[in-house]
Amino acid sequence: MPRYRFTVEYDGAPFVGWQRQANGASVQGALEAAFAAFTGETPVVKGAGRTDAGVHATGQVFHLDLARAWRTDTLRDAANAHLVPQPVAVLDAAQAPDDFDARFSAIRRHYVYRIVDRRPPLALDRGRAWRVPKRLDAEVMDAAGKRLLGRHDFTTFRSSACQATSPLRTLDRLDVTRDGDAVLIATNARSFLHNQVRSMAGSLVEVGLGRWSADDLATALDRADRAACGPVAPPDGLTLVRVDY
Amino acid sequence: MPRYRFTVEYDGAPFVGWQRQANGASVQGALEAAFAAFTGETPVVKGAGRTDAGVHATGQVFHLDLARAWRTDTLRDAANAHLVPQPVAVLDAAQAPDDFDARFSAIRRHYVYRIVDRRPPLALDRGRAWRVPKRLDAEVMDAAGKRLLGRHDFTTFRSSACQATSPLRTLDRLDVTRDGDAVLIATNARSFLHNQVRSMAGSLVEVGLGRWSADDLATALDRADRAACGPVAPPDGLTLVRVDY
Repeated sequence: MPRYRFTVEYDGAPFVGWQRQANGASVQGALEAAFAAFTGETPVVKGAGRTDAGVHATGQVFHLDLARAWRTDTLRDAANAHLVPQPVAVLDAAQAPDDFDARFSAIRRHYVYRIVDRRPPLALDRGRAWRVPKRLDAEVMDAAGKRLLGRHDFTTFRSSACQATSPLRTLDRLDVTRDGDAVLIATNARSFLHNQVRSMAGSLVEVGLGRWSADDLATALDRADRAACGPVAPPDGLTLVRVDY
Repeated sequence: MPRYRFTVEYDGAPFVGWQRQANGASVQGALEAAFAAFTGETPVVKGAGRTDAGVHATGQVFHLDLARAWRTDTLRDAANAHLVPQPVAVLDAAQAPDDFDARFSAIRRHYVYRIVDRRPPLALDRGRAWRVPKRLDAEVMDAAGKRLLGRHDFTTFRSSACQATSPLRTLDRLDVTRDGDAVLIATNARSFLHNQVRSMAGSLVEVGLGRWSADDLATALDRADRAACGPVAPPDGLTLVRVDY
């Protein structure tokens, strides 16, 4: 069976998350329904990252197998036609080798967490950013964030629901920059624990507000205890921007 | 009566436009209702620019008069509390001289028109940009756009519903730049005719697609005839970003 690889963009707001679930519409379910509608097959969609409810993607990757061979442009356009009016768009489609696996072949996941630090509520960025009503010191956040780089036990920044067998992860990038009224946290790693980026973002905001020092952040990591984590940042600000293979 | 000046951000999608109308919710009406709710007065809100249905703002300006004197921070926060859940946010509030008029004192209006030129539909930017399914040449658009600078009869780029007494306007800036998958048209003038920016954007897209030359655009302007205009760009891509006084 030919295997295909796709890049997909979505607004996470109306979904229970990437993964198919009994309690509501998922991105995976929307994609499977779209492909089923025009192929007459019932393909299983496998994604690189299981984003939570409300988390967005501009570069999620998934693969699926189809019995029939298709032109990749046709697959992309037909899927998009059947996804309307859901906020999910297939950006590109390609043939993939039989051993390509969107999840297990991935060597790096890139996320951006977006914060708008201003007192007024968000009108245009609602659901697309975390509004923090006080000014953040992005430089101090950036310096503190570097303490999380490298290979560590990330239990502090891991959801209690995380199903990974090991809490050890290697964080390769964590940059905090200011862009006008927005503070962007750009991070990448081979893989992340469940809620790891949102947990790190929430604790970095404690640093940016002056409530935690960089040492406090490093100590929280070293404790390897979920109770040491700051408030977990809401899903709205998080976007899966790219997956490398 | 003390006069106050405000900057406001809004998502234009759910509104019939800035101006109060009988046929649906307007931004002006939402603001008037919010101020009435906590002041007990019935202030009239006067804006710098009457944006159409679907057009956004990050820097619209309005003024209003209140019988009672207020702390400006309180005015901003109370208005925002009463605007929930509408996508309208007051960014700042200030006292203004009695002769300040958001519309007539304005010396320059800045707009950005945003186009995403790609074949897949928009998931995250839906309602926030105009998707053009073919690649645009932004450099050619930029060069052609310069032909519209200066003082001209802009009848070609003017809605038939425009109520201005004169079609003469002076265009001070028109820059077209590429930012990844987006093409941005940044323009400013003391004032614009009704639909002028969307009309110019639609004709510039004809240039970017190679259907019109820069000379065709200049000829369309010179004809001073609405029939010479290209397709008018949809409201989704347009944002009023700043007003100068």
